[in-house]
This record gives sequence, C-alpha cells and structure tokens, in this order.
Amino acid sequence: MTTEKIDGVSVNTQANVYFDGKCVSHGLTLADGTKLSVGVILPATLTFNTGAPEIMECVGGSCEYKLDGSSEWVKSSAGEEFSIPGNSKFEIRVTEPYHYICHFG
Amino acid sequence: MTTEKIDGVSVNTQANVYFDGKCVSHGLTLADGTKLSVGVILPATLTFNTGAPEIMECVGGSCEYKLDGSSEWVKSSAGEEFSIPGNSKFEIRVTEPYHYICHFG
Repeated sequence: MTTEKIDGVSVNTQANVYFDGKCVSHGLTLADGTKLSVGVILPATLTFNTGAPEIMECVGGSCEYKLDGSSEWVKSSAGEEFSIPGNSKFEIRVTEPYHYICHFG
Repeated sequence: MTTEKIDGVSVNTQANVYFDGKCVSHGLTLADGTKLSVGVILPATLTFNTGAPEIMECVGGSCEYKLDGSSEWVKSSAGEEFSIPGNSKFEIRVTEPYHYICHFG
C-alpha cells in the first residue's frame, strides 16, 4: 500500500537540492508539528549521513540501500520502507527515480 | 515578499520529474480544491508548453524567461512572478537553482 498523498500539511516552498540535483526534496510540517519530507532520488549511487534516525518510505520506483557496517545491498520498492539509525550513514543505489517520504525520529 | 510556506495543503508524494531531473516538482491541492505545484529548476535552458494558463512565482534563486512570440529575455527573482497564457510555451534560462510555485488558471 503506497502513500499517494499527505493531507493537512504545511509545505516549504523552497526545495532542498543535494548532490547537484540527484536528490531533491521539499520539507513538510504536519498539524502536530511533526516534520518530514517528500523527495526523489535520480539514477546515481549516493551516500547520506543521518543526524536524527530516519525512516525512508518508498512511494514510487525503487532503490537498493546498504546501511553503515553492512556489506549487503537490500532492495526497497513502492510500499516498503527501511530505517537508518541516527548519527549514521547509508549508501543508496538508484537506477529508476526513487520517490520517497522521509520520516524523522 | 517571498512565500516561504503554504499551509493546509494535500501533497502528492510522487514527484514530477521533467527533462531528466532538470525540473522537479510536487503537486499540491488546497482545501478548496485549487491545484498548484512547488518545484525547482536546475541550471539549464528549457522550453515548457502550457495547457492551462500558468503563473510562475519565484520563491528562491532567479531565472530569465522568454514568452512565445517575444525576443526578449526577462529576469524573474524571488518575490516576483510572471504569467504564461494557456496553450502557449516559454523558454526559461536558469544559472542558479530557481525555486517556484506554479499556479494554474
């Protein structure tokens, strides 16, 4: 089951552009103050660092990811999610646009 | 005066990716059903076609645009907007990420 819409949010109009545009997201705030973002990663292999723990929910396309300390690439497709600990990092390998919701905390 | 946030919207979680990612946007729906989008154009010169008339509101960075039938490039910066007729087209030339809200109708 894929999350197609998120209702009742406040959206930051300015995008976050990472890695020369290989990753573009828009920040959202829910009515209760919870922050998250919606974004897309274009074909590339990238390394992201986390501050807070993150949950990456795939809403379109797919990726493969490798958590810090792991040697295993794991696939994540629409309707699936994976968790990254705080103060860590992960690699992500994308061959078709990977659309996601990033939940923090 | 730049629009930094839009409140009370429903956001489409899947991004619209145009021109191999040179333009990425997310569709929004206001409580009254009005549709718009927030997006970013990365450095490039692109041609967009319109169906409905559009208003491009710049919320960060800048662009130069040229409407169909015009030979003049016009600059548009944060806090400014320009209108494109329906069933028309425009060229846009971007040298720093151009963040925008696209209003329809």
